[in-house]
Amino acid sequence: MNRPLVLAFDVFGTVVDWRTSVIGELTRFGEIHGVQRDWAAFADEWRGGYSPAMERVRRGELPWTRIDTLHRWILDELLQRAGIDSIPEGDLDQLNRAWHRLDPWPDSVAGLTRLKQRFTITTLSNGNVSLLTNMAKHAGLPWDCVISAELFQHYKPDREAYLGCADLLDVAPGDVMLVAAHPSDLRAAREAGLMTAYVVRPLERGEGRRLPGFDPGEFDFIADDFLDLARQLGT
Amino acid sequence: MNRPLVLAFDVFGTVVDWRTSVIGELTRFGEIHGVQRDWAAFADEWRGGYSPAMERVRRGELPWTRIDTLHRWILDELLQRAGIDSIPEGDLDQLNRAWHRLDPWPDSVAGLTRLKQRFTITTLSNGNVSLLTNMAKHAGLPWDCVISAELFQHYKPDREAYLGCADLLDVAPGDVMLVAAHPSDLRAAREAGLMTAYVVRPLERGEGRRLPGFDPGEFDFIADDFLDLARQLGT
Repeated sequence: MNRPLVLAFDVFGTVVDWRTSVIGELTRFGEIHGVQRDWAAFADEWRGGYSPAMERVRRGELPWTRIDTLHRWILDELLQRAGIDSIPEGDLDQLNRAWHRLDPWPDSVAGLTRLKQRFTITTLSNGNVSLLTNMAKHAGLPWDCVISAELFQHYKPDREAYLGCADLLDVAPGDVMLVAAHPSDLRAAREAGLMTAYVVRPLERGEGRRLPGFDPGEFDFIADDFLDLARQLGT
Repeated sequence: MNRPLVLAFDVFGTVVDWRTSVIGELTRFGEIHGVQRDWAAFADEWRGGYSPAMERVRRGELPWTRIDTLHRWILDELLQRAGIDSIPEGDLDQLNRAWHRLDPWPDSVAGLTRLKQRFTITTLSNGNVSLLTNMAKHAGLPWDCVISAELFQHYKPDREAYLGCADLLDVAPGDVMLVAAHPSDLRAAREAGLMTAYVVRPLERGEGRRLPGFDPGEFDFIADDFLDLARQLGT
């Protein structure tokens, strides 16, 4: 079996548990401002708005726009629909940066620390550089470097993001393995010539949610978590 | 006194002792290939070729070219002038990557580790991303992120490099402090609106070499090393 030189990690859902973190931030926001809503549903809609917004950038309907800005547009619309207004700008900005303060899955830091001993470990995320950098400080993620779609002005699954990562690290695409909890991301990486590792994150969208299907053999590795991936890679 | 949010570090000479490291690599190269030269002078000429090569890129005489490639052009010319030939390509590439394996100054890792507790610490170097990433792994440099002139296709002292760093980290230029051992780099950063910290590295070019002059009050901080800078910044 071929072995990669670089492990490039999808972040939202793969490294960090965005849902629990964002629900927690929304709940605190509601307490401070005296409003009660279904914050789990609100978090899911906030996340749900992200993919269509990125698609508009990918199709060229919008110029390059950072995730921070897309998150804010979606948040403003959701707050309006929920009838929540008169929130000071500073508090809205603070809430929007909840995505900079996401907590890791229980195995993430220990797994990355082990994998870092043998491989170069980088983000390869649609999150902007400042978001990923702040998140790494918050969550203690020991990245060797922070690579973002922002550097290429191409969101995944655009081919430019996967190839740009290999180019910046000066290795062949086949020497990079994308690690992700999302088959669609992995398929695009494989199309671009990268190796692929699927990590199962059954709770990303909450309990009892069905995970997207995939064929056996579609990906180079299938792992229960980052520690399992480290074991399979012999670290 | 104003305090920055981000510390952006020049790397060659400021964080790592390129001269001692490169002389060591050249000496081993000479032993392996049975050639003896004045490797200290060779290292100085290798480094000396870097600034004129970058200037050609900055003036637009050359398209964007990574430092790895510029280093290799200079190396090939120096080897030819020294009458050293018939070296296998793999060994030349390995030697050229000496710049990926530079050792830190004695205070660098401890100082960065302290500064990282309070500030976001990033590279802001003309070295390419892969060089800086490999160097961080080699030397144990605990960067929060790796920012390079390569990301902007503008070498320092082009204004775009300093402003691009602030933009990627989503802070105002005045919230970034460049830390460097070179007054010329710091002056360009100050012109772009950054704060500045001069760190004295008396041995960068070997013993007994005169350091470039500067006026008192030209920079926001003057420090003997990174631990001194950490003390002055209250960390």
